[in-house]
Amino acid sequence: MERSLGELAELLRGELQGDAGVRVCGVAGIKEARPGDLAFYADRRFEPWLASTQASALIIPIDATFDRLPAIRVADPRAAFLRAAALLHEDGRPLAPGVHPTALVGAGTKLGEGVAVAPHVVLGADCVIGDRVTILPGAVIGDGVVIGPDSLIYPHAVVWKGSRLGARVIVHSGAVVGDDGFGFLTREGRHVKVPQRGHVVLEDDVEIGANTCVDRATTGVTLVERGTRIDNLVQVAHNVRIGPDSILCAQVGIAGSTSVGRRVTLAGQAGVTGHIEIGDEAMVGAQGGVTKSVPAGQQVSGYPATPHARARRMYAALRHLPELVREVRRLGERLRRLEERGRGAS
Amino acid sequence: MERSLGELAELLRGELQGDAGVRVCGVAGIKEARPGDLAFYADRRFEPWLASTQASALIIPIDATFDRLPAIRVADPRAAFLRAAALLHEDGRPLAPGVHPTALVGAGTKLGEGVAVAPHVVLGADCVIGDRVTILPGAVIGDGVVIGPDSLIYPHAVVWKGSRLGARVIVHSGAVVGDDGFGFLTREGRHVKVPQRGHVVLEDDVEIGANTCVDRATTGVTLVERGTRIDNLVQVAHNVRIGPDSILCAQVGIAGSTSVGRRVTLAGQAGVTGHIEIGDEAMVGAQGGVTKSVPAGQQVSGYPATPHARARRMYAALRHLPELVREVRRLGERLRRLEERGRGAS
Amino acid sequence: MERSLGELAELLRGELQGDAGVRVCGVAGIKEARPGDLAFYADRRFEPWLASTQASALIIPIDATFDRLPAIRVADPRAAFLRAAALLHEDGRPLAPGVHPTALVGAGTKLGEGVAVAPHVVLGADCVIGDRVTILPGAVIGDGVVIGPDSLIYPHAVVWKGSRLGARVIVHSGAVVGDDGFGFLTREGRHVKVPQRGHVVLEDDVEIGANTCVDRATTGVTLVERGTRIDNLVQVAHNVRIGPDSILCAQVGIAGSTSVGRRVTLAGQAGVTGHIEIGDEAMVGAQGGVTKSVPAGQQVSGYPATPHARARRMYAALRHLPELVREVRRLGERLRRLEERGRGAS
Repeated sequence: MERSLGELAELLRGELQGDAGVRVCGVAGIKEARPGDLAFYADRRFEPWLASTQASALIIPIDATFDRLPAIRVADPRAAFLRAAALLHEDGRPLAPGVHPTALVGAGTKLGEGVAVAPHVVLGADCVIGDRVTILPGAVIGDGVVIGPDSLIYPHAVVWKGSRLGARVIVHSGAVVGDDGFGFLTREGRHVKVPQRGHVVLEDDVEIGANTCVDRATTGVTLVERGTRIDNLVQVAHNVRIGPDSILCAQVGIAGSTSVGRRVTLAGQAGVTGHIEIGDEAMVGAQGGVTKSVPAGQQVSGYPATPHARARRMYAALRHLPELVREVRRLGERLRRLEERGRGAS
Repeated sequence: MERSLGELAELLRGELQGDAGVRVCGVAGIKEARPGDLAFYADRRFEPWLASTQASALIIPIDATFDRLPAIRVADPRAAFLRAAALLHEDGRPLAPGVHPTALVGAGTKLGEGVAVAPHVVLGADCVIGDRVTILPGAVIGDGVVIGPDSLIYPHAVVWKGSRLGARVIVHSGAVVGDDGFGFLTREGRHVKVPQRGHVVLEDDVEIGANTCVDRATTGVTLVERGTRIDNLVQVAHNVRIGPDSILCAQVGIAGSTSVGRRVTLAGQAGVTGHIEIGDEAMVGAQGGVTKSVPAGQQVSGYPATPHARARRMYAALRHLPELVREVRRLGERLRRLEERGRGAS
Repeated sequence: MERSLGELAELLRGELQGDAGVRVCGVAGIKEARPGDLAFYADRRFEPWLASTQASALIIPIDATFDRLPAIRVADPRAAFLRAAALLHEDGRPLAPGVHPTALVGAGTKLGEGVAVAPHVVLGADCVIGDRVTILPGAVIGDGVVIGPDSLIYPHAVVWKGSRLGARVIVHSGAVVGDDGFGFLTREGRHVKVPQRGHVVLEDDVEIGANTCVDRATTGVTLVERGTRIDNLVQVAHNVRIGPDSILCAQVGIAGSTSVGRRVTLAGQAGVTGHIEIGDEAMVGAQGGVTKSVPAGQQVSGYPATPHARARRMYAALRHLPELVREVRRLGERLRRLEERGRGAS
């Protein structure tokens, strides 16, 4: 939805700089922005892109010295940018309300107001689907699933038996929520499957990436708390608990029964072993291999994951390890000569 | 299916301890168990949880001293626990026999007795589907696939052309069995696809996790032998062979033509290069990067994967490498002073 | 399609060696080949398998001394092998042209000549589907998608809104092309979703592996150029650009806005951080963790990724690090004794 910069300045209650007639049709980051985009500049970390951004206009702090482009000056550029995003992307729902004739709805399932169910969707029995939920083509919802209002289920997602999703949850294409945990009992060398009787709870505003798997609990729940965002191809094993507002990047794996705190960041391909705790606001670097609990606020990286400052020095030293080996050999040689001289002298 | 502890003690031919009227409705591990669960205690490794378990009752060895909770005393707690699991979870099949009218069955395909085919399933031509096989919503079975009795195919799984599955095989949601191997011939800088003509064989009691991929062979077979359990998001490349009763944890990757023995464990995110052999009962630690063959019985970890005892010492030493660098520098300095003194003395 | 070696020699314009009546039914690599297969021998790297190959016949260079098996002698064995593959595997299309009655085609969507659409496929509105495109069971194509001629979309693949695919593109089962990028703005500790308005472009002859994800751009495009082959379970984040003729092996991950050159190889489970550049013909080893840009032609491996020759020496030295630590301790001890002797002498 295209708007003029003047119109936006008014809606955002900001001060207009430059041509009110400039047209913007979407928001973007200052680095990725292209002509037609509105970007924002919040603080000095954005400066490297100020001269080169291709955005048509910027949202900037009231006291910014920047004047190269048309802009809207506001007290809180981040908040204004998010409001602008909402104003420019009112593209409505991806599917009109109603149940497509090829979709199947199981016995006892209740659909809220304005629910949209796409072709070839299969909805199990005894589900409760909240108002304005959208379920896109081919998604499969198992028996007894509860989905809160305004949630969005993408094509081919599977939300299996007994899963409970809050409001505004997004499950992307191919994600599998509520599949069996990987639980066996090994007896006489054979792995016998232990029934996986628990389920998955995704709280409000959780997002689950494409082809990501969140396993049901062995017993009890696998829990992802409010506002946590999970990227693609992530593995969340049975009985894991993830606190609110955390970020799990692509291809992260968390083994069974581990507990992750609030506002934790796990960078891409990081792995976390089972039965440990990652404290609030901890960060794990990309590919980090976490083998024991991480205290709140700590940043770790590498394998095995080590506090980040030490890990940096470790890996810098590792890079020069071949030279260190030679240096030690030379020291040994010099020492041998000194010792011989010493023996000669005595 | 809820039962009383007295009833279970009788069925398991065990000795009842405490209240026969206690009701249990499921089994669980001693750590995860909650009220209503029956857990078990096999040996000393379970002791840390004996005081705190929330289970309503335990299965314990005949001579155990434990008396805090109601229990059933048996000679083999592990075996009794598995029998109890079967007794408590007789929840029958997830789908009643019959072919849903929206499912499609190709020409020449034979369905055994009691086969259950869910909505929107597509079954190719010339398949042989064994007795009591269950195929859940949206699964796609290619032409010429054979599936043994009592197997279970979850929603959106793809079992592609010519795959042969044994009895009691489980393929979880979104898994892809029998897709093309990644085979190219590079000529003048371009990668030309080599036809992938082989297929996949999954023997009896194999389990394939959600969104896991098992590629068809270039020619011949990609083979997973009896009883091997594979977790979610695992990659098994073309022409790989995996022996019986092995465990592949989530996000493991095995490159083409590698052979894995029996009772091997590959922990989460481990990677194995192509054209090598992992011996029987070997173990690869989480995130381990295996670059050459591993002898039978060996435990390896780290990158490149190294026998585990050495790897532990390696990574412990790596952690202190920055101090070692300083120490070597100091030794060099002390040595220089000694050498100078020596020159002064001579 | 079975053929005699004599017939093939004629079609390939090669010189026949041995029995013209030998029947071959397919091509395979010299190592994997089985009876009935035609393999090839291009140069000395193939020699280890010359004595043991089970192929029924080989394509060999004109001047090769090999005579153990029937063969076809040609100037360019690689080219002849690819022609033979085409001759032996003319198995036609996996689906006959036509739109299955259970498939749904959105308003304004144009289908080219000979398009084949399988059961339960959902095609969105305003798509342009090129001649002879094949879309297999259950695939979902979003609104406004363009697919070039002779492309092949496997079961359950999702090609989401606005994606543009070239000619002869292959998207394997369960792959997700054009899902949202992982873009948030964090404000007061909460992660607010930034609209992902861009799309995905896959040029001619690109192949996308099973369950792989290629995210749409935040704004602009995520681009995979001509002839690049991507294996299973790979993550390609928003705004990534990958040059032509590159190879991404299974479980590779590339973070947002990174640019990858032409003829680059990323081996299995390698990870590449965001906003960097991988130069043309660079190679990243398996599990390599790339944290900064890699110059053209460079081979890197390990974590953090380091030029390969150095990485090899680094990891060899790491293996012996425990001994190095002991050696340094011993040197310190010897040095202390010398110093004491020196003090005693002075």
